[in-house]
Amino acid sequence: MDFSKRVLEMQESPIRKLVPYAEKAKSMGKNVYYLNIGQPDLETPKEFFESIEKAPKVVAYSHSAGVMELREAFADYYQKWNMKFDAQDIMITTGGSEAIIFALGTVADPEDEILSIEPFYANYRGFSEMLNLKINAVRAIPETGYALPAIEDFEKKLTSKTKAIIFSNPSNPTGAVYTREEIEKIVNFAKKHNLFIISDEVYKEFTFDGTKHISVMEFDYTEKTIVVDSISKRYSACGARIGVFATKNKELFAQAMKFAQSRLCSPVVAQYGTIGLLKNLDDKYFEDMIEEYQKRRDAVYEEVSKIEGAVFKKPVGSFYLSVELPIDDTVEFIKWMLTDFDVDNETLMVAPLDGFYSTSGAGKKEIRIAYVLEPEKLRKACKILRLAVEKYNNK
Amino acid sequence: MDFSKRVLEMQESPIRKLVPYAEKAKSMGKNVYYLNIGQPDLETPKEFFESIEKAPKVVAYSHSAGVMELREAFADYYQKWNMKFDAQDIMITTGGSEAIIFALGTVADPEDEILSIEPFYANYRGFSEMLNLKINAVRAIPETGYALPAIEDFEKKLTSKTKAIIFSNPSNPTGAVYTREEIEKIVNFAKKHNLFIISDEVYKEFTFDGTKHISVMEFDYTEKTIVVDSISKRYSACGARIGVFATKNKELFAQAMKFAQSRLCSPVVAQYGTIGLLKNLDDKYFEDMIEEYQKRRDAVYEEVSKIEGAVFKKPVGSFYLSVELPIDDTVEFIKWMLTDFDVDNETLMVAPLDGFYSTSGAGKKEIRIAYVLEPEKLRKACKILRLAVEKYNNK
Repeated sequence: MDFSKRVLEMQESPIRKLVPYAEKAKSMGKNVYYLNIGQPDLETPKEFFESIEKAPKVVAYSHSAGVMELREAFADYYQKWNMKFDAQDIMITTGGSEAIIFALGTVADPEDEILSIEPFYANYRGFSEMLNLKINAVRAIPETGYALPAIEDFEKKLTSKTKAIIFSNPSNPTGAVYTREEIEKIVNFAKKHNLFIISDEVYKEFTFDGTKHISVMEFDYTEKTIVVDSISKRYSACGARIGVFATKNKELFAQAMKFAQSRLCSPVVAQYGTIGLLKNLDDKYFEDMIEEYQKRRDAVYEEVSKIEGAVFKKPVGSFYLSVELPIDDTVEFIKWMLTDFDVDNETLMVAPLDGFYSTSGAGKKEIRIAYVLEPEKLRKACKILRLAVEKYNNK
Repeated sequence: MDFSKRVLEMQESPIRKLVPYAEKAKSMGKNVYYLNIGQPDLETPKEFFESIEKAPKVVAYSHSAGVMELREAFADYYQKWNMKFDAQDIMITTGGSEAIIFALGTVADPEDEILSIEPFYANYRGFSEMLNLKINAVRAIPETGYALPAIEDFEKKLTSKTKAIIFSNPSNPTGAVYTREEIEKIVNFAKKHNLFIISDEVYKEFTFDGTKHISVMEFDYTEKTIVVDSISKRYSACGARIGVFATKNKELFAQAMKFAQSRLCSPVVAQYGTIGLLKNLDDKYFEDMIEEYQKRRDAVYEEVSKIEGAVFKKPVGSFYLSVELPIDDTVEFIKWMLTDFDVDNETLMVAPLDGFYSTSGAGKKEIRIAYVLEPEKLRKACKILRLAVEKYNNK
């Protein structure tokens, strides 16, 4: 069949490609703990549904940049984070996914390169492949808790085709949170080389142990900065598909609007639901949520620490923990856990980290754990993981 | 600023680019009839909202191909149209827009060409530009009611880079509905040259005067056929953003799933709403709707017939009428109607047709009228159009 090279060369989602093995495990009667995907178990706040009930009864197209009341509500919300956006700077997108596609498409042409920090959110690569771009990434390592690599490493990856740098902070998949000094280094590097910054800040609420999220918008490079955001995680509303593309650069916004207009608008029912979330939830909601996630982080951290040979540091943000295991090929290991292993008829699924790298062969020993279940379930799952590592290495 | 060539060369939506002029007209206190965009005025059926109320309270990611109950409901629905799809052949997308993007991206690489019939749905061009593809179109003309051009004209446009043919039937923007013989000609042409067919059948319910919609799926070329569908028009649910990418080709489906997985899923709240529409509405709903649109078509047809020098035929499908006016540049004419013209403080907005062509300079005398208001409003709007043409030509 004559499919496009673009699609043939695209990797399958590393988060979803092992789903058939999990389905097999379930069909064998096993209970599977799903720690492969960042899908929180919490109920979406009732404010979302209440706001939908009050929405117009003709589900009409909205403005291509979104319902104005929602754009205004986001602008208010960002003020609390030192992100000085006006409603006119905010475009509502179909999830953070579409915001990333619009950002990449606006700044880069086929064969152009995008810098990132690996391991990175795996779909940066998928979206780049769809648009015929190449991700060129600098490596962060588990030994340092995936801290920002040296700027010299970034310089080495730079070519005449590099148009932008994209990264998530707090980091998916590593849980690292960059300090003010680290963000400043990235901004200065981008400034020096005239690169766009695509800053994925969807996990900004998720920081622990007193760590504070610092936005790229606090620095004086806003003219070439695009912020990507999403309500998916902080409101447990992944299926709503509501994201944000935000920039202070009017011309950049106008160009990206061409993409937005061609697809008409983002999901309108969920846009109205999101107005309720932004306007009617107080800070207590976030305090409770972060308290819960910190407990989850603690549970996973304690249990994974018991795995002999595991290399990692305590993560301080997002809701992921990446870890290098004493395993040569974690893809095969995860398949084995699902099909040939269980503890009291229970097993787990995690994401192999190799798909989160652009460097071929990298990350084969690492996995990502999404801590999106109650602490006791996470403890059980991580204990099963430890026993699996022990058994797999003694096979 | 260093934006991508892809976005700089992309045209603005011809349907939406004149919106600022309409906003100006409104700010001047004028009542504007919006016939530029295919946004029906009818209420979205209550079955949509009722079904949302019964949906799960965690708005979680769905399967990247959509909620299985919805895929099954679509498969049942297609049986009535002689489209033999199983649930596994159906991928729920974010509007028909995303289905088109997935289809184009799966079959074509940058610099490849896609055949179409112009005037075509304007966003085929936008999506192609986003993916660095070129639309190469064969011209249909108002004198014949935009009937299928001769196959020899298609042969002339073919190059070694042509990968697929995309068209809508019933047609947006022309209202033409292809006969069985015309579809057969397209299928045989595609077969002869090994092209994929991307068949946009979102208006299949909208046929008048006893005309019947014939799907490409009734022919023996299903292995290279992709059907694009959407609930937007038939359920007056444009803002739901629920569409379908459907193919019997398993390998093609699997490749397109890579795009689907990277963006995670389509809007889940609206997916649940759509289950209610597909399962709980009876044929009476469609009969009443088509009766109403036929009245609207009749009203527009009668009034536009009174415009001296207008070239068109009575359209038998979709809810658009395209017409050549005795005007040299309809973009300037539409701006003028909004800013410098009114009848009793009322005016109208329509879409200029030049943006629906890939041939440079074509369509400058044509407009598209979307008949999405009550018949009496449409009569008033078309009367204003007639008076505007007369006055503009006597300026």
